Amino acid sequence: MKALVYRGPGKRSWDEKPKPKLQERTDAIVRIVKTTICGTDLHIMKGDVPTVTDGRTLGHEGTGIIEAAGEGVTNFRSGDKVLISCITSCGKCDFCRKGMYSHCEPGGWILGNRIDGTQAEYVRIPFADTSLYHIVEGADFEALTMLSDIFPTGFECGVLNGQVKPGETIAIVGAGPIGLATLMTSQFYSPAEIIMIDMDQNRLEVSKKFGATKVINNSDGKAIEKVMEITGGKGVDAAIEAVGIPASFDTCQEIVAPGGRIANIGVHGKSVSLRLEKLWAHNITLTTRLVDTVTTPMLLKTVLSGKLQPKQLITHRFQISEIMKAYDTFGNAAKENALKVMLTNE
Amino acid sequence: MKALVYRGPGKRSWDEKPKPKLQERTDAIVRIVKTTICGTDLHIMKGDVPTVTDGRTLGHEGTGIIEAAGEGVTNFRSGDKVLISCITSCGKCDFCRKGMYSHCEPGGWILGNRIDGTQAEYVRIPFADTSLYHIVEGADFEALTMLSDIFPTGFECGVLNGQVKPGETIAIVGAGPIGLATLMTSQFYSPAEIIMIDMDQNRLEVSKKFGATKVINNSDGKAIEKVMEITGGKGVDAAIEAVGIPASFDTCQEIVAPGGRIANIGVHGKSVSLRLEKLWAHNITLTTRLVDTVTTPMLLKTVLSGKLQPKQLITHRFQISEIMKAYDTFGNAAKENALKVMLTNE
Amino acid sequence: MKALVYRGPGKRSWDEKPKPKLQERTDAIVRIVKTTICGTDLHIMKGDVPTVTDGRTLGHEGTGIIEAAGEGVTNFRSGDKVLISCITSCGKCDFCRKGMYSHCEPGGWILGNRIDGTQAEYVRIPFADTSLYHIVEGADFEALTMLSDIFPTGFECGVLNGQVKPGETIAIVGAGPIGLATLMTSQFYSPAEIIMIDMDQNRLEVSKKFGATKVINNSDGKAIEKVMEITGGKGVDAAIEAVGIPASFDTCQEIVAPGGRIANIGVHGKSVSLRLEKLWAHNITLTTRLVDTVTTPMLLKTVLSGKLQPKQLITHRFQISEIMKAYDTFGNAAKENALKVMLTNE
Amino acid sequence: MKALVYRGPGKRSWDEKPKPKLQERTDAIVRIVKTTICGTDLHIMKGDVPTVTDGRTLGHEGTGIIEAAGEGVTNFRSGDKVLISCITSCGKCDFCRKGMYSHCEPGGWILGNRIDGTQAEYVRIPFADTSLYHIVEGADFEALTMLSDIFPTGFECGVLNGQVKPGETIAIVGAGPIGLATLMTSQFYSPAEIIMIDMDQNRLEVSKKFGATKVINNSDGKAIEKVMEITGGKGVDAAIEAVGIPASFDTCQEIVAPGGRIANIGVHGKSVSLRLEKLWAHNITLTTRLVDTVTTPMLLKTVLSGKLQPKQLITHRFQISEIMKAYDTFGNAAKENALKVMLTNE
Repeated sequence: MKALVYRGPGKRSWDEKPKPKLQERTDAIVRIVKTTICGTDLHIMKGDVPTVTDGRTLGHEGTGIIEAAGEGVTNFRSGDKVLISCITSCGKCDFCRKGMYSHCEPGGWILGNRIDGTQAEYVRIPFADTSLYHIVEGADFEALTMLSDIFPTGFECGVLNGQVKPGETIAIVGAGPIGLATLMTSQFYSPAEIIMIDMDQNRLEVSKKFGATKVINNSDGKAIEKVMEITGGKGVDAAIEAVGIPASFDTCQEIVAPGGRIANIGVHGKSVSLRLEKLWAHNITLTTRLVDTVTTPMLLKTVLSGKLQPKQLITHRFQISEIMKAYDTFGNAAKENALKVMLTNE
Repeated sequence: MKALVYRGPGKRSWDEKPKPKLQERTDAIVRIVKTTICGTDLHIMKGDVPTVTDGRTLGHEGTGIIEAAGEGVTNFRSGDKVLISCITSCGKCDFCRKGMYSHCEPGGWILGNRIDGTQAEYVRIPFADTSLYHIVEGADFEALTMLSDIFPTGFECGVLNGQVKPGETIAIVGAGPIGLATLMTSQFYSPAEIIMIDMDQNRLEVSKKFGATKVINNSDGKAIEKVMEITGGKGVDAAIEAVGIPASFDTCQEIVAPGGRIANIGVHGKSVSLRLEKLWAHNITLTTRLVDTVTTPMLLKTVLSGKLQPKQLITHRFQISEIMKAYDTFGNAAKENALKVMLTNE
Repeated sequence: MKALVYRGPGKRSWDEKPKPKLQERTDAIVRIVKTTICGTDLHIMKGDVPTVTDGRTLGHEGTGIIEAAGEGVTNFRSGDKVLISCITSCGKCDFCRKGMYSHCEPGGWILGNRIDGTQAEYVRIPFADTSLYHIVEGADFEALTMLSDIFPTGFECGVLNGQVKPGETIAIVGAGPIGLATLMTSQFYSPAEIIMIDMDQNRLEVSKKFGATKVINNSDGKAIEKVMEITGGKGVDAAIEAVGIPASFDTCQEIVAPGGRIANIGVHGKSVSLRLEKLWAHNITLTTRLVDTVTTPMLLKTVLSGKLQPKQLITHRFQISEIMKAYDTFGNAAKENALKVMLTNE
Repeated sequence: MKALVYRGPGKRSWDEKPKPKLQERTDAIVRIVKTTICGTDLHIMKGDVPTVTDGRTLGHEGTGIIEAAGEGVTNFRSGDKVLISCITSCGKCDFCRKGMYSHCEPGGWILGNRIDGTQAEYVRIPFADTSLYHIVEGADFEALTMLSDIFPTGFECGVLNGQVKPGETIAIVGAGPIGLATLMTSQFYSPAEIIMIDMDQNRLEVSKKFGATKVINNSDGKAIEKVMEITGGKGVDAAIEAVGIPASFDTCQEIVAPGGRIANIGVHGKSVSLRLEKLWAHNITLTTRLVDTVTTPMLLKTVLSGKLQPKQLITHRFQISEIMKAYDTFGNAAKENALKVMLTNE
């Protein structure tokens, strides 16, 4: 079969590889129908993720059809349509038993990281019973592929951890795919004011369509004072960080109101300076989280009921055989006005 | 009357001052029976708190008897025995209405800061109805003086924000009066393991008596590795910061387990470096808080029922006229083996 | 001035009465601009509320303008536009301090009950600072009059107590004004499915316009089996009781899923039979609540931001001098297709 | 092997039966070391539990040693010492994924009910990985046998659902083994006052030793007025029902304070009358729950750390071959002063 293979920093190829086989009784082999590329894959390509080694098939998002299921798999069988979670969960360890699948002892984020991933024609999914979700007849594979990672990430790390409540004023720093997924799912809780902050005017325009009540182009570096102006000097109830650099974290800690929350979603490569000399007395809560995907069943319901339309994030479509080109497009997201690129293997 | 007056950095005096009068209808004048000195008063004496100006009477803790009550005061009258909260609460502003008295618009921490405080024979208490608590007949003024500040602070900022739960492993960094109040009140929630960390061996010995299951003297700078050893490499469920310097914050962020909480109590003068490059994926919660004293009624019940014995923290006693000497003792706490010093005006 | 006066069971009159005066320093006198009639007023008229005695001015909802404010009132002054809460809160008692204003010791539901109410040209409001809310310039008095009682009631007793969550399936039994306010505010939390149950087809049609995804006319007594059919035999996550009779409570206890919630809003005159022989093992939560109006500030924000449009519930308008006729209309709600009747005093 | 077999209402026998075998790959066979008898077993003997049919081996509590583990079992192997949960959890169904193991689709309470149980020399445990817990070297089998059912039941259904908090006043109606387990675990949250109510003076004396601050012998039917007297007419913050009859439920609904909780633990055979005509406005929360045993890992920690000493409940000890006599003793609990009877198979 064909797969997108990491060949060391800056190098990738669309290569022939052996089709994966069942290794454990709890494995399933899934034929990929749809997959996509994540910002994290670009980080990996820079060589920033040391657990990814030469020869690894990338990708941790996708939907497909069960090709084979191990004898220990009881929830799925051949031919079942499935959504693949970016987080593999054994369902038995202490972390899984308390709903923190991200830290599953034998699992967690391993797809396209410690084991081969979904940017291929087939993928092996360990602990299939607790790492896959059924796709009901008639549901849209493209829409559901958005639930592998970015929607649970935006919702759990941003909206739930940010404790967004009806009537509140929130700000989301970063209008990339994750920031936009956060914007869309934050509306489950009806905040009165949602301020999107980014430097890309196109993404801010998209934000308006997706429900932002205010947008701030921070090209002039004045986001903080603009937020304080909008909020009458009070700051926001929740500041959600969806970039992953010190500057965007700083914006969050400057705009959060006393009693407010900073919810970090971004993948950070460096430490940040936390202004405890001011914040110690501000009664704030700051959270971090690698997505657990515990809300995937709930998000599935909201997609099926039409409350959530994740497909709106897809800007480009390719055959999986064109994935090298898809990476180029996604890697030049600003120039290409790209949000999510959808890859089809049919 | 006599009062302990701040005279600029490093200078204080026990001076004659006019007895305070009712200024607003919601004020009360309280004759002090017991008061004490807080670590914050030492910060003020260093000139670190710019809102405190020359001539200010210090002190934000105390118990006493109502001397006069304004016409708008309905809960108290002359002769009532009262506990003074370190936080003044109007009961009407948005922050008060949501239980965040620390940020009360006309109140908050003002005693011995923006207005004259409790280290005097008399003190004026604004918004008396919502800033004082009744002391029932027979209750111990010394014990209750400990509820003005340090017990609600340790309990709210440390224990409640740290979400301490039965069976958990927690660590408290700092075994001063606030750390010890945190240790004592953490036991309301029955953690299985409470690790106290400090560099003062005397305070660690006291910690053992007050319920610590492990103590670590960090004079050798090896607290982090010792905690990881005790916890089998997992870290602690809650790491509570009760010092207020970057080093103790660092200890907390290194020992917190995935899914755990860092609860900051310490008053910080500097920014700290937050290791988001590691913590972004550790699902942690970090909180800050200026005490709201919302739990004072509950703490009063636990003292009256004998569950909590705050008097154990008192190591030295003085007449209020000896307060200059009391400051010296408290200022040399390590040498004097001092925890809380109790001042009597009777 | 003129007022609607209760004259014993079944008797009311639009009478001349003395204009109310300030009695306590914390009182305000409000000139009524808008008021309305509540289902509870009809209960009172039947003689079902023994605390209401002959001569009482009815009404606990309204908006107006401050005519006079006592010396102890600090948040409001003459000429301020205000929303009157149906719950009077002293802000100082134990219940108020924990946000349970419904049980305020000197307050609670007293307007149009233990003291004269709002169906008059003027009303005296005790504890004005903590029982009134500012109406900002340009806001709509009619819309805000809906926030005196029914919207906080539907939201707090139904939606918050019912713990409505995104993606869930909920049912509301009763499509009267309170049930409809519950329907509208439940959408703050984005349930996937909202089933309205009533016997009045007009109200069910209105429900559809207001966001119900399914409606059930229970005239045939088959609501329970229809709900079970809609939910695939599972039952609903939250069953909200908005009628106040044993039959509607029964519906709730039959349709709630294991792990679900029954939130009672209805004012009940009789005991109900609770099927513990079945429910003991169903892990359910049942709540009751007299509205606390703690969410009024939040609801105000959602009205001002356009998220909530409470005016949609108003079906009939009268001058306050026509209130006798307004009672007749509201008392024949089914025949008149009446939801809320709005009374104007201008 | 030998087993205690149900032979229809009122009939049981200690019979020879075939030793259980692995049926599914996720099964384990456990050699029983300790087992006990539950109040529920007495209900079964009366014929009150229709799912239990003639020939069934009873018992859902126990500790033992793994004799054989299916190929799909990954957490346990032969020779491992284990605690058996009374609730069987598949770990994969929707209910298990949200921590509601009591409603596990293929599991739940099946041991000694739908399948053969633990009052035998050997037992087959389905879904062993998620229905057993490791017993560490040196731990006490007798103490841990108490964690199969009664301690998680008292803690989850009574203490957690009752939301017991520091400083509160709670009442537990029923001082049988479950009520006493509730009493012991309620102290994890440091209530100020714990009132035990029963008609058996011996059990009330035991309650005092276990931490009750007040006991009420309700032989005179005056428990309600006594509780109101103790609480100054306010009622209790949490009323925990640990009997399972209408009279004890009534006591709970009469003594709960406004804003309080009623937590039902009892297994009820009849409906009760819920006084909504009074309670609709009392802001109460009533919960029911079949134990989920989600807190078993936490309870294990508290036993190992010495915080909880469940062995104190054991009043009588027998060899498993004497189980017919043990049933007689437990069946005459009042006369025999029996709490839990411990059966040993060694």
